[in-house]
Amino acid sequence: MSENTQQPLISPTQPSGVIDFLPEQQIPRLAIIDAVRRVYERYGFDPVETPVIERLDVLTGDPDDFDMKLWRTHVSNSRLTSGQEMALRYDLTVPLARVVSANPDLPMPFKRWQYGHVMRGETPQIEKGRYREFAQLDADIVGAESPLADAEIIDIMCHVMLELGLGNGDFLVRFNNRKLLNGLPKLVGFGEEHIIAVLRIIDKFDKIGRDAVLDELRVITEEAGKKTVELIRFTEDQMDLFARFLDIDAEDSMERLNKLGKLFAGIGVAEEGLVELRTICNSLQAIGLLDTYSIVDLTIARGLGYYTGPVFETTLLKVPEIGSVYSGGRFDGLINRFSYRKLPATGASVGVDRLVNGLLKLGKLQQMRSMTEVLVLNLGDEFAPMYQNIASTLRSAGCRVSVYIGSEVSLRGQFGYAERIGVTCAVIFGEREMTSGVLGLKDLRTRNQESITFRKDGEFTYEELSQKVCKILSK
Amino acid sequence: MSENTQQPLISPTQPSGVIDFLPEQQIPRLAIIDAVRRVYERYGFDPVETPVIERLDVLTGDPDDFDMKLWRTHVSNSRLTSGQEMALRYDLTVPLARVVSANPDLPMPFKRWQYGHVMRGETPQIEKGRYREFAQLDADIVGAESPLADAEIIDIMCHVMLELGLGNGDFLVRFNNRKLLNGLPKLVGFGEEHIIAVLRIIDKFDKIGRDAVLDELRVITEEAGKKTVELIRFTEDQMDLFARFLDIDAEDSMERLNKLGKLFAGIGVAEEGLVELRTICNSLQAIGLLDTYSIVDLTIARGLGYYTGPVFETTLLKVPEIGSVYSGGRFDGLINRFSYRKLPATGASVGVDRLVNGLLKLGKLQQMRSMTEVLVLNLGDEFAPMYQNIASTLRSAGCRVSVYIGSEVSLRGQFGYAERIGVTCAVIFGEREMTSGVLGLKDLRTRNQESITFRKDGEFTYEELSQKVCKILSK
Repeated sequence: MSENTQQPLISPTQPSGVIDFLPEQQIPRLAIIDAVRRVYERYGFDPVETPVIERLDVLTGDPDDFDMKLWRTHVSNSRLTSGQEMALRYDLTVPLARVVSANPDLPMPFKRWQYGHVMRGETPQIEKGRYREFAQLDADIVGAESPLADAEIIDIMCHVMLELGLGNGDFLVRFNNRKLLNGLPKLVGFGEEHIIAVLRIIDKFDKIGRDAVLDELRVITEEAGKKTVELIRFTEDQMDLFARFLDIDAEDSMERLNKLGKLFAGIGVAEEGLVELRTICNSLQAIGLLDTYSIVDLTIARGLGYYTGPVFETTLLKVPEIGSVYSGGRFDGLINRFSYRKLPATGASVGVDRLVNGLLKLGKLQQMRSMTEVLVLNLGDEFAPMYQNIASTLRSAGCRVSVYIGSEVSLRGQFGYAERIGVTCAVIFGEREMTSGVLGLKDLRTRNQESITFRKDGEFTYEELSQKVCKILSK
Repeated sequence: MSENTQQPLISPTQPSGVIDFLPEQQIPRLAIIDAVRRVYERYGFDPVETPVIERLDVLTGDPDDFDMKLWRTHVSNSRLTSGQEMALRYDLTVPLARVVSANPDLPMPFKRWQYGHVMRGETPQIEKGRYREFAQLDADIVGAESPLADAEIIDIMCHVMLELGLGNGDFLVRFNNRKLLNGLPKLVGFGEEHIIAVLRIIDKFDKIGRDAVLDELRVITEEAGKKTVELIRFTEDQMDLFARFLDIDAEDSMERLNKLGKLFAGIGVAEEGLVELRTICNSLQAIGLLDTYSIVDLTIARGLGYYTGPVFETTLLKVPEIGSVYSGGRFDGLINRFSYRKLPATGASVGVDRLVNGLLKLGKLQQMRSMTEVLVLNLGDEFAPMYQNIASTLRSAGCRVSVYIGSEVSLRGQFGYAERIGVTCAVIFGEREMTSGVLGLKDLRTRNQESITFRKDGEFTYEELSQKVCKILSK
């Protein structure tokens, strides 16, 4: 107990629904972000960073089903806010739309990726992975109407998963087209105004299965205050059409498109969607991604109202319960909030934390408490210059090295620290080693310790040490 | 004008005092963040990420001179906040203190780096680089009392600057010890309560020079409401002592410490500070960093009240007007806000955006509008599968490649795009090339265009293209 006991302590707690990433979590997170970034860069995507604080009117105004529970923000000293209402961004898409609209000279297509925190004013449900502040990692192409842009996004999604060490049978990117789904009202015979409600149910196909989807579709209701109102009740004939749609099965994506073409024959919007899907499939087939890593899947609908064309989802096939780890779609209307300029856009967002969980479960990601590989033990501050030299030599050789600078004096205590942060080897250099000219290098995995000469003809050299350390680390 | 003209438009503007980083700014920023991260990792620092939203009581309670103009935040739907007052973090140090206190099992020393946005409720002064939301990039060592930890921070600061391509004469890390400065009240003879006011003036040495510092020190005043109150008025004898302190000059850091030893003889706190500075100097000397890249400088005080020991600053010598680009110090008291556990800490924060400005001015950073190196022109969607194959081959060879998917149909228009995003070369493949089996590769820097055979014995191969592109890019 120090002289500070008189100060009242503040509890070091977080607000509910937000999360800290300590090294154990953040090391794998960064490994994923790095891999995703490498792929984005290879495809010519450029980085953008925007502020967390946005004007409230920029964030609201989303026309559809986005529940506007925002984090409002203001400066304590209200003189500064001068009537400007502000809030924290809830995604990275609206800020992209703002940036593109505010910078009309940006060359189009504009391909950008962005990592950043977003905040939602929802009731947190940590166990379900629903947070009030979480990270998004997005890649979007703005200004490209061509379905080739959508094909590029799917191409990237496949390559990100491959970059993460996943292979055939590990993941599947499934895609569809909202335009095709928008043909359902004509096909089945119901009002356009019910399409979002219908798609929300179809979107559950993966979780609840075909029969439950058809069952839920039969009577669609809506909560109005405390009452449940019936929106639409389908006839048996209509249910048959839904079933015919959901039951379309085929060997591969191209055949699936052919069967859909017959079902939706004469329904303009769906036919347009099918043409786009064919272009996408051709493009993916050319580079060997179709029906290996990506397929057309009719049940992918994506709940968000703002999607207008192709939509994409990614499933980890061995841990499907995690849900889609990487999703997106085309949103041609969003940028119109700020500008009359026609700016089509398509993109996808990596669910970084879902992906971390999934890859850890699949054993595709190494969990570690520290990235430090070598600890130089401290057996007396009088040797500090030698420790600096040892560390410096090892760092030049590309190793990640710490000199122990904590309060443990004993060798035992310092080895304990080495084990707790999980370093691979430790360098031992003290009085005895100074006298003998031979230092110790311990491999903490094998518990092997070797002796390494560091003084030759009166000169200190750590080259042999460096070679031995690199050899141990390369194992 | 589309069908959206009936919707009222929202202005795509930011709140005042925040900033967007488009690729042109973000590419060099990421290059710097990457370089800093590489150095941190080599020294065994691990990454941490914490939320932007913190509890208000966690953020306030700073005892000293930190002006608590915070961004308060709450959810529109107030039911969720349940009385918890929240605000946005103003630095990454308080969150570090919270994390360390909340996780008592973290192995100590705990070395972490973190990049993140912080928010301050100040009046923005963009021209002075004072923003209301900006990025910090910190590295700190918690749980190491030894001045070797401070030496390690200075070591890292030097190596970060070297990693950024700066050399001798480009930068200087200057360091001092608050304990030495804390000897000034005894040396000069004034009350401890005036030390912060005195240090604030000494800290201006770089900007206003020796004489102006002495002039300002003569009478120290304070604003109290609308009146200016005299705090302290020094005698000529006292001013002589200040002058003797400021005028200490020496060939090198060690000699400077010797002279300081004589001046502060018998003043305990200053002597303690000198012992620490000697340990730091010995450590830096062992790896060749002392008086080359780092020096003891008596005038470095750092305004922030929370520093308790060694303090550090980094000047770009050819653009000193930018101010310190990388600063820090020891803050042994901060973590006590949350815990009675003794947790000393030392660290430094990179001024990412100051550094970008400085390096751009020094020509040490390449400014580019896109990282894309190669653009595959689109001369007809029927060739899309070939474009995908070309891009895929080039990407496998490590190139950053975009296939043009925009709305420009003409070669001229697409070349215009290529030039505007600044790609190095363009691949030309259309009807004519399909027939001839020979495609075009244009180097946009030299305007040279070469013909490359891509069809051999009826098979398509882009290996020769890939070699040629790599050769152009390596120039």
